[in-house]
Amino acid sequence: MKVSLGAEVLAMPTPVWIVGSYGEDDKPNAMTIAWGGVCCSKPPCVAVSLRKATHTYGNVMRRKAFTVSVPSEQYAKEADYFGMASGRDVDKFQVTGLTPEPSQVVDAPYVKEFPLVLECRLLHTLEIGLHTQFVGEIVDVKADQDVLVDGRPALDKVMPLLYGTGGKMYYKSGPFLGKGFSIGRGYMA
Amino acid sequence: MKVSLGAEVLAMPTPVWIVGSYGEDDKPNAMTIAWGGVCCSKPPCVAVSLRKATHTYGNVMRRKAFTVSVPSEQYAKEADYFGMASGRDVDKFQVTGLTPEPSQVVDAPYVKEFPLVLECRLLHTLEIGLHTQFVGEIVDVKADQDVLVDGRPALDKVMPLLYGTGGKMYYKSGPFLGKGFSIGRGYMA
Repeated sequence: MKVSLGAEVLAMPTPVWIVGSYGEDDKPNAMTIAWGGVCCSKPPCVAVSLRKATHTYGNVMRRKAFTVSVPSEQYAKEADYFGMASGRDVDKFQVTGLTPEPSQVVDAPYVKEFPLVLECRLLHTLEIGLHTQFVGEIVDVKADQDVLVDGRPALDKVMPLLYGTGGKMYYKSGPFLGKGFSIGRGYMA
Repeated sequence: MKVSLGAEVLAMPTPVWIVGSYGEDDKPNAMTIAWGGVCCSKPPCVAVSLRKATHTYGNVMRRKAFTVSVPSEQYAKEADYFGMASGRDVDKFQVTGLTPEPSQVVDAPYVKEFPLVLECRLLHTLEIGLHTQFVGEIVDVKADQDVLVDGRPALDKVMPLLYGTGGKMYYKSGPFLGKGFSIGRGYMA
């Protein structure tokens, strides 16, 4: 017997992604989001949702570009801070000591120290309600050499953070469980 | 120095969510997706992306509703199977022995054995390319009593699966790391 919890955002897991953008003054900014995900394979696209009130919202609207930097678990404090402070008030890179690296393919910076980066040009915006969804076409992916296995980023090397909506808590990602399109084959006729 | 990997869907983590829908024959169907995420707080919404070729695509278009059932790690094999077989050819509930439970609030079934369920009415569709994005307004959330902490679902009780895009592998979610809007406070002025 399940309990009814009402109309609430209690989906999980959600990612902890850092959206990189430039301000009007060309200053690099980084903002943490958990409302996002992949939304298309061809063209390869990710979606991130932002409130209109955020500094990043205006930045992405103006430059038509953003990056998604995926922090490993060792950067949990920095990721949490990027979600609390506003780029209107402070230079979050300066405060944390992390490095804004200009993308060479889209008009946005990324976080150099984070192991996996998606460089996106803005493809669609969708007004939903409190949040506006930005669909970005992934123009290139950059990754640190040491998170690659057979030339592709491995989740248990990237060690991305998870956000649990229920209690507003961060969790680590866990160990390998099984191969996709494989472990369920026993059910195939 | 980062390596360039090209324009590929290498975002992570992505969720492993089961989309529940009814076929034209009223038969309940379940399909696994990893392209999805939360996209708005008010109204509370999740987005899931589906290829036009899938059985679920037509189902959701007709009924304007779907559910998202979140499997715990013990159901990894079933989740993998739900992503391989098509409801056009088989009754995936019958094959796996899992139970389709009719939602009382939207016109779609969910997986009774999975600990967390979002019941959604279709709010928007967005054609992106190979995938169409379905934005569903969360009308109600249902959860098993034993995954609740202070009345809210806890990620380390639900134990959702993660999908690693790089190697097409499943991972477990990991342990608690820290509180959101808290562990980064040391950087606030």
